[in-house]
Amino acid sequence: MNSKAFYSLSYGVYIVSTWDNGRPTGCTANCAAQITSNPATVMVSINKDNFTNSCIRDCGYFAISVLSETSDPSIIGTFGFRSGKDFDKFSQVSYAIKDKMPVLEDCCAYIACKVIDTMDTSTHTVFLGEVIGADTVQNATPMTYSYYHNVIKGKTAKNSPTYQADENEPQVSANKYVCPVCNYVYDGNTPFEELPDDWVCPICGAPKKVFQKR
Amino acid sequence: MNSKAFYSLSYGVYIVSTWDNGRPTGCTANCAAQITSNPATVMVSINKDNFTNSCIRDCGYFAISVLSETSDPSIIGTFGFRSGKDFDKFSQVSYAIKDKMPVLEDCCAYIACKVIDTMDTSTHTVFLGEVIGADTVQNATPMTYSYYHNVIKGKTAKNSPTYQADENEPQVSANKYVCPVCNYVYDGNTPFEELPDDWVCPICGAPKKVFQKR
Repeated sequence: MNSKAFYSLSYGVYIVSTWDNGRPTGCTANCAAQITSNPATVMVSINKDNFTNSCIRDCGYFAISVLSETSDPSIIGTFGFRSGKDFDKFSQVSYAIKDKMPVLEDCCAYIACKVIDTMDTSTHTVFLGEVIGADTVQNATPMTYSYYHNVIKGKTAKNSPTYQADENEPQVSANKYVCPVCNYVYDGNTPFEELPDDWVCPICGAPKKVFQKR
Repeated sequence: MNSKAFYSLSYGVYIVSTWDNGRPTGCTANCAAQITSNPATVMVSINKDNFTNSCIRDCGYFAISVLSETSDPSIIGTFGFRSGKDFDKFSQVSYAIKDKMPVLEDCCAYIACKVIDTMDTSTHTVFLGEVIGADTVQNATPMTYSYYHNVIKGKTAKNSPTYQADENEPQVSANKYVCPVCNYVYDGNTPFEELPDDWVCPICGAPKKVFQKR
């Protein structure tokens, strides 16, 4: 089996959100799809180790915020490389309540759903949701997972369905600085040492001081 | 609910194939995703009215051929706008048997699966498959559904999860020729009347003579 074949499947980049006893929480996901249009039904796949998974089970509802190519890429890291159990992810972003669900403002569309079925795999739960509300938010091109990888140079979190250990080994030439949280490799024109002290990883928001020289 | 929000979800373009009592058959699909990597597991969503759906249930196996931007777009129509019940779709394409499954040669990768679970919705079945084999086929960029719509100008079959009636109403100016099978609108530089008699619809393969002037 050549796992590179899996890279050829196309995905988007989404923030899947829900409620944790009245507090908004969520995580980054790349696997969301419409399953039928009558009635409108969509699915998302969420790792069982993600705090968001248990919150969706308890709450019975979830929302998908569809990131666009112009969305701030740090959103992906905020929601993708930390647990919402002890970190208030929504304190880092602007959001609104739409159809009773927390939805990011920096996205191109949202879809709010009521869970109607689930399917378990060894590591992930597929949540099937009947759509209770949906709308466009910003007129922008949806971010594809390919764009995230190839243009933003983003990496895959270990809890993602598409995580591959080898893909996450940063290909680093001499004197590159690597984020230890999300494996982002800094390759900007400004020498890393000259970046301001308050510079943070554009993917996950980790501070400059934790970057490691390779 | 604004169903335009659903357009923001990202998909690929796939041919999902299986066996019908020893005869290869299949259909076009846009919803395929990796659900977990341990063990490698993928899902596809197939309309219950599709002949391929019942064949996958009976056979217990399916394969995904991932179309690329360079794949012949007529493959999409051959597999998407006709039923495999009484039409031998695979007689129209080059294919090989890989991991005991029929796989297109004009694709960038394939994934062969054994069905391990199903989830039913009102119109579609989600098939969950453990991967039994996968490989790259051609070094090419996977075709996204967005590319199919925006570059190839393809339409959505009525059995697709993402079908929207209004989207399929062709936006036709005067003297345009429309394919009655798949709604493809001819907009080439050569006047339609001057196309050769053996010209066929690039999406579904319908002959020139059935095109209708609008």
